[in-house]
Amino acid sequence: MAYGEPIPTIVSVDLDKPAFEQPGIHNRWHPDIPACYTMEQNKPYKIECFEWTGGQIKNNDSADDIKYCDLTRIHYLSGPFAVESAEPGDVLVVEIQDVQPLDRSPWGYCGVFAKENGGGFLDKFYPKAAKAVFDFEGIHCSSRHLPGVRFAGLIHPGIIGTAPSAEVLEEWNSREKQVVLDNPHSEFIVANPPCIENTFAGSLADSDIAKKVAAEGARTIPGRPENGGNCDIKNLSRGSKVYLPVHVKGANLSVGDLHFSQGDGEISFCGAIEMNGCITLKCSVIKGGMSKMNMKSPMYLPGPVEPHYGPNRYLTFEGFSVDETGKQFCLDTTVAYRETCLRVIEYLRRYGYNDYQIYLLLSTAPIQGHVAGIVDIPNSCTTIGLPMDIFDFDISPESEVVQKDMKSCAFATDDLEKGFPVHHIIPNRLLEIITKTSGA
Amino acid sequence: MAYGEPIPTIVSVDLDKPAFEQPGIHNRWHPDIPACYTMEQNKPYKIECFEWTGGQIKNNDSADDIKYCDLTRIHYLSGPFAVESAEPGDVLVVEIQDVQPLDRSPWGYCGVFAKENGGGFLDKFYPKAAKAVFDFEGIHCSSRHLPGVRFAGLIHPGIIGTAPSAEVLEEWNSREKQVVLDNPHSEFIVANPPCIENTFAGSLADSDIAKKVAAEGARTIPGRPENGGNCDIKNLSRGSKVYLPVHVKGANLSVGDLHFSQGDGEISFCGAIEMNGCITLKCSVIKGGMSKMNMKSPMYLPGPVEPHYGPNRYLTFEGFSVDETGKQFCLDTTVAYRETCLRVIEYLRRYGYNDYQIYLLLSTAPIQGHVAGIVDIPNSCTTIGLPMDIFDFDISPESEVVQKDMKSCAFATDDLEKGFPVHHIIPNRLLEIITKTSGA
Amino acid sequence: MAYGEPIPTIVSVDLDKPAFEQPGIHNRWHPDIPACYTMEQNKPYKIECFEWTGGQIKNNDSADDIKYCDLTRIHYLSGPFAVESAEPGDVLVVEIQDVQPLDRSPWGYCGVFAKENGGGFLDKFYPKAAKAVFDFEGIHCSSRHLPGVRFAGLIHPGIIGTAPSAEVLEEWNSREKQVVLDNPHSEFIVANPPCIENTFAGSLADSDIAKKVAAEGARTIPGRPENGGNCDIKNLSRGSKVYLPVHVKGANLSVGDLHFSQGDGEISFCGAIEMNGCITLKCSVIKGGMSKMNMKSPMYLPGPVEPHYGPNRYLTFEGFSVDETGKQFCLDTTVAYRETCLRVIEYLRRYGYNDYQIYLLLSTAPIQGHVAGIVDIPNSCTTIGLPMDIFDFDISPESEVVQKDMKSCAFATDDLEKGFPVHHIIPNRLLEIITKTSGA
Amino acid sequence: MAYGEPIPTIVSVDLDKPAFEQPGIHNRWHPDIPACYTMEQNKPYKIECFEWTGGQIKNNDSADDIKYCDLTRIHYLSGPFAVESAEPGDVLVVEIQDVQPLDRSPWGYCGVFAKENGGGFLDKFYPKAAKAVFDFEGIHCSSRHLPGVRFAGLIHPGIIGTAPSAEVLEEWNSREKQVVLDNPHSEFIVANPPCIENTFAGSLADSDIAKKVAAEGARTIPGRPENGGNCDIKNLSRGSKVYLPVHVKGANLSVGDLHFSQGDGEISFCGAIEMNGCITLKCSVIKGGMSKMNMKSPMYLPGPVEPHYGPNRYLTFEGFSVDETGKQFCLDTTVAYRETCLRVIEYLRRYGYNDYQIYLLLSTAPIQGHVAGIVDIPNSCTTIGLPMDIFDFDISPESEVVQKDMKSCAFATDDLEKGFPVHHIIPNRLLEIITKTSGA
Repeated sequence: MAYGEPIPTIVSVDLDKPAFEQPGIHNRWHPDIPACYTMEQNKPYKIECFEWTGGQIKNNDSADDIKYCDLTRIHYLSGPFAVESAEPGDVLVVEIQDVQPLDRSPWGYCGVFAKENGGGFLDKFYPKAAKAVFDFEGIHCSSRHLPGVRFAGLIHPGIIGTAPSAEVLEEWNSREKQVVLDNPHSEFIVANPPCIENTFAGSLADSDIAKKVAAEGARTIPGRPENGGNCDIKNLSRGSKVYLPVHVKGANLSVGDLHFSQGDGEISFCGAIEMNGCITLKCSVIKGGMSKMNMKSPMYLPGPVEPHYGPNRYLTFEGFSVDETGKQFCLDTTVAYRETCLRVIEYLRRYGYNDYQIYLLLSTAPIQGHVAGIVDIPNSCTTIGLPMDIFDFDISPESEVVQKDMKSCAFATDDLEKGFPVHHIIPNRLLEIITKTSGA
Repeated sequence: MAYGEPIPTIVSVDLDKPAFEQPGIHNRWHPDIPACYTMEQNKPYKIECFEWTGGQIKNNDSADDIKYCDLTRIHYLSGPFAVESAEPGDVLVVEIQDVQPLDRSPWGYCGVFAKENGGGFLDKFYPKAAKAVFDFEGIHCSSRHLPGVRFAGLIHPGIIGTAPSAEVLEEWNSREKQVVLDNPHSEFIVANPPCIENTFAGSLADSDIAKKVAAEGARTIPGRPENGGNCDIKNLSRGSKVYLPVHVKGANLSVGDLHFSQGDGEISFCGAIEMNGCITLKCSVIKGGMSKMNMKSPMYLPGPVEPHYGPNRYLTFEGFSVDETGKQFCLDTTVAYRETCLRVIEYLRRYGYNDYQIYLLLSTAPIQGHVAGIVDIPNSCTTIGLPMDIFDFDISPESEVVQKDMKSCAFATDDLEKGFPVHHIIPNRLLEIITKTSGA
Repeated sequence: MAYGEPIPTIVSVDLDKPAFEQPGIHNRWHPDIPACYTMEQNKPYKIECFEWTGGQIKNNDSADDIKYCDLTRIHYLSGPFAVESAEPGDVLVVEIQDVQPLDRSPWGYCGVFAKENGGGFLDKFYPKAAKAVFDFEGIHCSSRHLPGVRFAGLIHPGIIGTAPSAEVLEEWNSREKQVVLDNPHSEFIVANPPCIENTFAGSLADSDIAKKVAAEGARTIPGRPENGGNCDIKNLSRGSKVYLPVHVKGANLSVGDLHFSQGDGEISFCGAIEMNGCITLKCSVIKGGMSKMNMKSPMYLPGPVEPHYGPNRYLTFEGFSVDETGKQFCLDTTVAYRETCLRVIEYLRRYGYNDYQIYLLLSTAPIQGHVAGIVDIPNSCTTIGLPMDIFDFDISPESEVVQKDMKSCAFATDDLEKGFPVHHIIPNRLLEIITKTSGA
Repeated sequence: MAYGEPIPTIVSVDLDKPAFEQPGIHNRWHPDIPACYTMEQNKPYKIECFEWTGGQIKNNDSADDIKYCDLTRIHYLSGPFAVESAEPGDVLVVEIQDVQPLDRSPWGYCGVFAKENGGGFLDKFYPKAAKAVFDFEGIHCSSRHLPGVRFAGLIHPGIIGTAPSAEVLEEWNSREKQVVLDNPHSEFIVANPPCIENTFAGSLADSDIAKKVAAEGARTIPGRPENGGNCDIKNLSRGSKVYLPVHVKGANLSVGDLHFSQGDGEISFCGAIEMNGCITLKCSVIKGGMSKMNMKSPMYLPGPVEPHYGPNRYLTFEGFSVDETGKQFCLDTTVAYRETCLRVIEYLRRYGYNDYQIYLLLSTAPIQGHVAGIVDIPNSCTTIGLPMDIFDFDISPESEVVQKDMKSCAFATDDLEKGFPVHHIIPNRLLEIITKTSGA
């Protein structure tokens, strides 16, 4: 390469055409999906990526598209990219040099999926579809659906992973099938097994391969320890290096589901600011790295340029493994984190937001979700740190509360017509007890 | 108060006498434990506190004291302190102005409790007792049981909470009893109901009160949403403000279980650097604060002086809700966090540490435990960020590995005699698959 | 604007044509330079900018272009941009939303100017021309002329300012002329008065205006309190807001001299990583802001996403107002800062760098230059914090020193032929005294 | 040392007795001052220190004590401490493990010295004595003389240094005498030569030594490159390591002038929060370190626990080397920094503070004073970042200004009687120009 040459773009996306017709795109994990390009080690490349639904969601003020989104047509990933010299047992080091929205698409969105189509972490309380569209202005974003809030993106790929070997794939399909078999009466989906419908094995796959991938290919929804994938790690951002196990010759890296920002947990499921974008990355290989590091799942080093608030600018909420009915769970950290989310919603409501807006905010803003205590039987305790500096008003507990017109997020047309409640009133047993006790 | 007067010390501890004889000390939550002092609002006080076991653990090189620790004699708290004008429904604001070890006791310890006495988050893998003693040198600590590591303390009280009302206490006892009833065959303890033995209702309690507290008093082990308590939140440190619900007249604040440092999760149960120390705090009251904030559990604002590493100095490990046998769990964040801990242990082992040393390190160093993704069925994903700057050698993946003499943590005498394994070899299925596949 | 429209680019540069032929470009401060565009308030725009010399410096391995650079043809700025409703006495708020290198030009450079052509802060010691070319890979940069170093850019405009009124311009010309008159025998240039040669008043200026601007227009070299301009403030970066006095109707904002990174002081004069790039910005107006804020010079709020190292990752050097000959100056902070720079050079030399390389490093890396003490007669004391994490080897004082092949920065051909010294040996009087004293 | 022993206190101060009678105290730099203790390497010690005036300043509401302070009786340092094995040419590494105010003296003060007795950086504008007393509450401080402000201390020793050799001392005395000779008509003091009056060579000095020290001993006011000394570096705080040249056998370390907090520049001369306190430190020696590091002046590594605000919480002011009369200076960074200070004062005045209060605030709060640009002839540019989070009201430019009752700092009785002005109105030429121009 001559001095000063532009970094080559090896996948370009056409936002005006369907994602599933385009080269360098696919939507399953399978060892037989042909690599669309072979990368040299230590050379940077630019890769454009579709937002996860491949264009189903629009920049408008209705959540109809979220409500009726076709979830078989998701996670259009860019790749796979073979990396020269990578072999099973190696570790692939991917330096994420930059992630940017496309200049021609300077916006993104976050959706709350309806309980009956996708759902989310709080769907028991917030079962309806909702949406917030975010506009990007350089490093910042804001939303007409979330007044009073503006923040710098902690921009990252929601999905980055290597191809599974046939054996790894078999392991995935087997253990995820087992969890379905073990939970025959579950009221919600416990795993997504392979699904032929709308499988896209990439434009280079012949029909035999396409059929095989459709029949066996692992779905992109969960992240998995063996290859990373859909980990939705909010600070796998610009400047990060991620270390991935290699299972097939060439490693076959796929990447996509770019997020402008996300809070810990990605709680609304489509819980980040989803966007079309471009990732710049550079790969190298640590030969025999998996045994050297005794690696069973990916590791990473975050980059040095996170948005950066002082520690005492995080208003922090605590949640425990006692649910809203007073039921005690034993060290259930998932329950504790759900309770913590609810505490933030209940608090922020006083400024005039509806609950769905706060749910969308928790999903997208760089909230810090920590495991605080996980050994003091029977209560797990988790915390959520909410950065106060993303608000253009003072949300500290001591500040005067002035209710503002916070407008609304987008809802689906027929939900609006039915007048569903935008607040979910979870009884505050504590206040009831106190009121009773004190005779107030 | 005249200008420049010393801040008054309202509880002093005598390290040479048993904790349960001393004024201003108690070890249960109960509305009837008499307040030992009434604080003025907005005035700072110093309060000395015993380490949580009240002196059972010694500064030596054996874990016998951990193995045979009497867990009915724990959490000797200082207080309760009434705060003038606080009434049920108010919010008590406690500013933690400083926390320091006692000059006369410049050391602390972390213990791994044996599975049959206390246990811990990884007791399935590490069932034996172990201990590391840390020496304090100003803001830093180091341990002869953990060579190569030194870090600044993120010093905090493990326990801070208000007294429950009779109704709140009844709710606790009822729901925690229920979880015991619901798990009759559990192989481990699921909750700790009231226990008469070694209850200490404080030196001001008459025998009627003492009996009542012994019979009904809530144990100090779990933190609880209604009053905080044993939350073990690592960054509730110097300069923090914590907002606590008030259930009884005067609030009756108790504090103790001071930690020089702790990692997210406090995973080894006695999982922080436990120490005798002194906390400086100041209280104020937000009248009617619980309904104003719609409060159901405590909130806090961390202080501004945390130890502070750059984001890209955290080597970060990922864990998923697939356990070490390959069993798939559905969005079980507790399983995911346990797996994440194991990944760190497996990695650091290559530098010459034994597994128990790393377990102790994970418990005490300011590791960042995050909920990364909690909606991508069936995998929860959590991460642990390990600050690389606490090591005096380079632990980055690319660095050359030089095994050093890392000595050992302390173990119990009879365990050592029996030669129990200090590494728990969890099969690395991934490496097996790859080895098989590649024919290597 | 419809939802999701791309942000408009209002100045584009053609890198293949001379800067001084292009619309939206100029190189003087003068009230009569016609605005090339009128911005709406609160609307984002993209503006492309030439690197400061308008393309004189090339991506190659010779510093001939630096040595013979035509310094009358510099600071090709984009603009001026009128902002609707801005009037004298207002404050113009410019939000710098993003700054990026051009995709088609992913590199930049830093130059040490020869003492006889431009010079620099250390030209007494380093009088020759030198150059380092940096390659950009996403947020990071590295240089083949500076092995062992890589860092994230703290990207910013070196110049941003409003047009002077005729009165302000007169004040500038008068006081800067005076300093020339007051220093008739100075060995170096003390100010750059207006200069007709190569003045470019923009493509919209008719010949009368062009003549007037050439005769009176203030040079772009110094920043000035009245309008900002060439302040070279390293953290006026992405997400910053700068508050500028308004002197003419429309404010007439100009911007340029984009830097990928710079250290405090911009010590080598062309002392940042100079690049062609694009700035995204948004303006608004505080009516009557100058008197409201009692403003005499610009203010700014930095953005939230700086590269971010822990405080104890800055190896910090001290310098005092005693020069290298032992001469004592009285509270001369400029002398102190020069000495501090020399201390860093002397220290880093031990790793195999030549002095010019370190000089270039100090100019470009995000070093923190602080005024430490400025009142303890007769010594000013300044400090420079050097981030250790930008090196791929350990530079801490305790670490073992292994000299590496650090290659060289670029020099001018005829200097190389003459074999000028690349180290400037400043006698270490302290070591001499000690050697003498101790008889060693 | 047995496990867990308290850290020994090797100098204790009695606040009820004069400083100059006490062991382990002295107030000059001289090789012959006898060491009061010999430290082992790598062992921590606690050392109590007097506030710099040895108790002349009181906790009251008058600045009479500042106005009439005896400046020959200052900088009562603790030490000197010999360090085992240190010899000339070595580098002494001092780890500052902790710095704390004395429990028995939980307050400090900052003084503006009158122009005729000490003066300060802004004494041209603020020639009168003033004082603010600060109360310490754990890590925080606040002042009844500065309402609306509270911040965490960045606690540090103002003075830490090694003893000079006879040769180094001779160099100091010679060059500082020369600056006096070179400025015979200076209106202010340009250096402080040796002064017999009130010299205190320590309780171990016999009368011959005491006389020699009085005649030759270097004053403590300036820091010096050869040994550090009075550097007043604000982040040489808890956890820092400072590297000092060794000139005499044993190094003979002295320390004192402890500060609870200070802004960059220590601008009011007694410009920090001065306090009685205790420093914990540990020393080690790098043999031959001076030549290994090519050391000419001290270096340090800051600690990891600074108070920590997000970058965009610093409202930042710019100042240039054009003084308040419009006079242009050529690259005079001292002038630029003075102007920057004035810009902050002019801005904050709008909230109701008097100028002396802001001067005291700038001296004590952790303001960041940076050298921004030092090469753009003729203007040096410096910046001051003012942390907005230390105010309990919003000081951002866009916020509404509500003047409050900010009370006052302390002044001297006779100044108050004479009614001197507490604001210094520096004409705002810029506003004048604009007013004239716009006809407003």
